[in-house]
Amino acid sequence: MSAREEPVDIVVEERRLAGTLITPDKRIPGFLFVHGWADSQKRYLVRAREIAALGCVCLTFDLQGHAETEHDQDNVTREDNLKDVLAAFDLLAKHEAVDRNKIGVIGTSYGGYLAAITTQLRPVRWLGLRVPALYLDEDWNTPKSQLDKKKIATYRRGPVGPGENRALSACARFKGDVLIVESEKDDIVPHPTITNFREAFENAHSLTYRVIADADHALSEQNWQEAYTSTLLNWATEMVVGSREEGDTPQALTEMRPGPTRGPPKPA
Amino acid sequence: MSAREEPVDIVVEERRLAGTLITPDKRIPGFLFVHGWADSQKRYLVRAREIAALGCVCLTFDLQGHAETEHDQDNVTREDNLKDVLAAFDLLAKHEAVDRNKIGVIGTSYGGYLAAITTQLRPVRWLGLRVPALYLDEDWNTPKSQLDKKKIATYRRGPVGPGENRALSACARFKGDVLIVESEKDDIVPHPTITNFREAFENAHSLTYRVIADADHALSEQNWQEAYTSTLLNWATEMVVGSREEGDTPQALTEMRPGPTRGPPKPA
Repeated sequence: MSAREEPVDIVVEERRLAGTLITPDKRIPGFLFVHGWADSQKRYLVRAREIAALGCVCLTFDLQGHAETEHDQDNVTREDNLKDVLAAFDLLAKHEAVDRNKIGVIGTSYGGYLAAITTQLRPVRWLGLRVPALYLDEDWNTPKSQLDKKKIATYRRGPVGPGENRALSACARFKGDVLIVESEKDDIVPHPTITNFREAFENAHSLTYRVIADADHALSEQNWQEAYTSTLLNWATEMVVGSREEGDTPQALTEMRPGPTRGPPKPA
Repeated sequence: MSAREEPVDIVVEERRLAGTLITPDKRIPGFLFVHGWADSQKRYLVRAREIAALGCVCLTFDLQGHAETEHDQDNVTREDNLKDVLAAFDLLAKHEAVDRNKIGVIGTSYGGYLAAITTQLRPVRWLGLRVPALYLDEDWNTPKSQLDKKKIATYRRGPVGPGENRALSACARFKGDVLIVESEKDDIVPHPTITNFREAFENAHSLTYRVIADADHALSEQNWQEAYTSTLLNWATEMVVGSREEGDTPQALTEMRPGPTRGPPKPA
């Protein structure tokens, strides 16, 4: 219980009544939103507002090579964009209202891939992945737009384990709570990729997996967007309210420290 | 939208990314719990903790004539206990963290009766009534324990309108959101009393009415207690999250001012 509970006297004329005042933590959870490739923060504002209404600080942002810096899209590498996510995370974590032990990262597609890697570099407690993309570890510093698209498409259709992929390795070590949302008719991030992610989270504190029926990768129909918003909001509510009830810093985060992010997930 | 939304620059090495930071209101909702006759604050602490976990300040307290002041139970009047509720409300409303426009009062049985009357004397936004009791207006300053129990039991079995009862009159003028929870097998507050309350709320912003199947007045079985806790928590979540999304002071409260609490609910 992180709330403070204190006895108070209620004065009524010459009488005093015994009361108990319960106040929640002053510091509140934070959520970072990472958009997908060729998208921008714009679309995420509505969801960020809804999660802020749970009593959280939310941060959306434009990755380098997008929105105002779209002119740079052909040059930007995964390393560049990972640095962007880390910088955004740090800005959120430094916010005076934010409880550093209660930060969630929510990413879509390429943003989900970056979010997954971020869990090994920053103390992420909650990880929300919508149609998370997968890339080969090789050519990490090659501009993202120059990666071999055919090779990636093939890679996404086969089984990939945590030992052979940086993002999945991060998932395998992640000890927080996970949401994975799949689009049933996704040509870009097909079912086998989602399965690779799901199977990777062997140490997660909880896993919530949902499929949006009939939906495509971009959730191009309004009702698919709404289904995702509702799923995300329910999950965030459960996480935020649950964390306020339990209060203490979860073991997963106190144990976490910066370190190598590659290699097999466990010494075994 | 009561949250603050501001553009922020995220600095990554020599680059700057455009971000949007959304922070919720610093002031948060408050909830006051009013226990029933011959009970105490003790039983309400668990629910108060759960609602505090939604990011609210909660206050429970012992009415005069109960717990530490039980020796006074035979002398205490409704006027005394109403003053207790108002004093407790004022203590909560004055708390630095509490948004005065977002205060809920939750009462059981006699506590529900007092909570209903409170809506006409203080700016209550949310009113939660479990098995709210009804008393004749007469003998207001007679010790509560000396009221004619047979007469009250008969009164609770018949139709009573807002024009003839102080608590129902307050309900009829109340413009906030209401939760009414009935116990299906309640000998003390029978179904007609609940109906009188339900029908009185003609100006309520919303009404949520639930019956706990098979339950008695005191919710003497654990699963009935749990059903009530879950109903209360769902309702409070909807109210609190909804108010954070919408933000502005509802018309009902800005219009409200202290005034007479008797008489017909509307000039008509």
